[in-house]
Amino acid sequence: MQPFVFHNPTKIDFGAGKVVKAGKATAEFGKKALLVYGQNSLKKTGIFDRITASLKEAGVEYVEFGGVKSNPVLSHTQEGVELAKKENVDVILAAGGGSVLDEAKAIAAGALYDGDVWDFFIDKAKVEQALPLVTVLTLAATGSEMNCGGVVTNEKTQQKFNIFGAPLYPRTSILDPELTYSVPSDYTAYAGVDAISHLIEGYFTSTDTETPLQDRFVEGTVKVIKGATERLLRRGDDPDARANMMWASTLALNGLSTAGIGSYSMPNHMIEHSLSAMYDIHHGAGLSIVIPAWMAYQAERDPQKFARFANRVFRCSGGSTAERGLYASDAMREWFRKIGAPIDLSEGDIPAEDIPAIAENATMLAQKWGLEEYTKDVIIDILKRCD
Amino acid sequence: MQPFVFHNPTKIDFGAGKVVKAGKATAEFGKKALLVYGQNSLKKTGIFDRITASLKEAGVEYVEFGGVKSNPVLSHTQEGVELAKKENVDVILAAGGGSVLDEAKAIAAGALYDGDVWDFFIDKAKVEQALPLVTVLTLAATGSEMNCGGVVTNEKTQQKFNIFGAPLYPRTSILDPELTYSVPSDYTAYAGVDAISHLIEGYFTSTDTETPLQDRFVEGTVKVIKGATERLLRRGDDPDARANMMWASTLALNGLSTAGIGSYSMPNHMIEHSLSAMYDIHHGAGLSIVIPAWMAYQAERDPQKFARFANRVFRCSGGSTAERGLYASDAMREWFRKIGAPIDLSEGDIPAEDIPAIAENATMLAQKWGLEEYTKDVIIDILKRCD
Repeated sequence: MQPFVFHNPTKIDFGAGKVVKAGKATAEFGKKALLVYGQNSLKKTGIFDRITASLKEAGVEYVEFGGVKSNPVLSHTQEGVELAKKENVDVILAAGGGSVLDEAKAIAAGALYDGDVWDFFIDKAKVEQALPLVTVLTLAATGSEMNCGGVVTNEKTQQKFNIFGAPLYPRTSILDPELTYSVPSDYTAYAGVDAISHLIEGYFTSTDTETPLQDRFVEGTVKVIKGATERLLRRGDDPDARANMMWASTLALNGLSTAGIGSYSMPNHMIEHSLSAMYDIHHGAGLSIVIPAWMAYQAERDPQKFARFANRVFRCSGGSTAERGLYASDAMREWFRKIGAPIDLSEGDIPAEDIPAIAENATMLAQKWGLEEYTKDVIIDILKRCD
Repeated sequence: MQPFVFHNPTKIDFGAGKVVKAGKATAEFGKKALLVYGQNSLKKTGIFDRITASLKEAGVEYVEFGGVKSNPVLSHTQEGVELAKKENVDVILAAGGGSVLDEAKAIAAGALYDGDVWDFFIDKAKVEQALPLVTVLTLAATGSEMNCGGVVTNEKTQQKFNIFGAPLYPRTSILDPELTYSVPSDYTAYAGVDAISHLIEGYFTSTDTETPLQDRFVEGTVKVIKGATERLLRRGDDPDARANMMWASTLALNGLSTAGIGSYSMPNHMIEHSLSAMYDIHHGAGLSIVIPAWMAYQAERDPQKFARFANRVFRCSGGSTAERGLYASDAMREWFRKIGAPIDLSEGDIPAEDIPAIAENATMLAQKWGLEEYTKDVIIDILKRCD
């Protein structure tokens, strides 16, 4: 195992019906909140009214800031920062999925910063402080509810970049599985892909081989997410499957699975971010295209861990290590196909002739993340496997 | 899954050599510390000098308070409370194993309380505040470094009771596996038993059957602890095995394995606390006597989960559910025997004729913990299986 610091101070309040605690949780951090949310679904489902009622009951004044897109964009984030400053809010309450939470984190940091909020994304500024953030999760997928990172796309430059910093940990996250009962099948499938992707990036890219605890955690959690996703595609309001999906996706990216594994990288996210920045495809759908291709590419180079994954997650025990390594990629693609996630560029409506342009875009993040081995040619190789 | 609140704010600083950060970690919370530690080993191994040097370097004045026994006792805890009050310390630095950390928690609470510190153990007072606590762990076993509980024995009444409360979460815990390289074989084995016990109490006693995430976490972590213990009995300074053991035992009782499983109980701890309160046997050694007996008792009543445990942890797939359920108990006893932990009362130097007296003692905790089904007769039944 490698040295690490683990410090995750987010309070999780989990359970069906917990949405009514949003007001009280927000009131702990101030009297005036910026209520950040997405498109219409929050209002249509009645969740919006339940949250605002609980805010009123807790004596919290709020300013509405809706309209966060999935793949949240910089211009809207900047509007949120301006509003938070103008209204002088004490606290941010984010109600939505990962996109809403991610944008809310950027707003929380931007509200206490004099420069442009994009500075945090291009490493021109560090997040030293942020307004306290409370979240109510309505889509289990990204893990943003229990970590200190977020992703926003700069529409002008087509850069989908990250913000990070300890002040961005939500103070309290309300995880009410009931709020996700009506998530449609396609989003449920993409959520499963996304949560699995968070677990396997570190698992497959760290070089320390003495991390049995983290490995077991990843393998076990992937199996649970697979099972829960399949159940939810049969019945979307299965309470236990929704609950398991929600807690699993939170744990998938709260720092536990990577604590102690040493350095690791996120090549699938690196490539996918270009797909969603350029084509506005759902992040999980972009990942289901990229992951099997990347797994095959990487298993050809270093099959050991892929072979074990095939064995422990997909119950494949026959064949050589190299064969089992490649089987992991095939089995993953097959499972993505089974749950209805796109498995190649054409299924994602992405033209194969754009591969060089996508690779060009992805090299920006490869450089930012220090992934020198991912040259444009390597990324093209991987993308061609998605064709 | 059941509703839960998970909020574990302890910062973990993990890695070989991290002990030198003790002073800096303490300085974050004050200028004067009470340095709580145990018997001679901390000084003999040189750890004491490294810690005090780091305190001096960080400009932290400290008052020594050594002499914590394993199975820490109330009278010594009360002395520590007095000293902390008299010296008006800002922060407690606990350096040792679970006993030292547990007593330090009680001192941290007692130092800000006017009454007798035992009040917290008998539910006469609630822990509303405590001095900040920083810990340096020298024995991986109890998990006290990342939770808000502690156990102290009242020697006069032979009550081994608990203290609990959010203010008792250590602010920072330094987990330096190097400090445990010299832990002798018997203590290493007991540590493995203890960490496993923390995982399986909730696993076997919760009634919710829809907790696949927590189940996988427990099964995987038990397997890792088993493997690490076996490696350490072959070579005590195996760096990876020590590191895995340390992080696994921390995660085993930091709230993760029980979050969402609903109500559960700790019958093995309930009975063991009487053994160590009455015979001052090592907690892990008491547990290795009790656990297989309790597992057999419980598997006779509700074999399902024991059968699955036998399958997933001990690779037993043959036989009926009832047979596999009992096999789990046998396999666990056999493993305890293999690592050299005592598996019956005589191996723990506990006279079988004391069984009624032990059971009488254990009913005190059964009542305190609301485990009505554990009458004296039931506890005698279980203890007879340890004979």
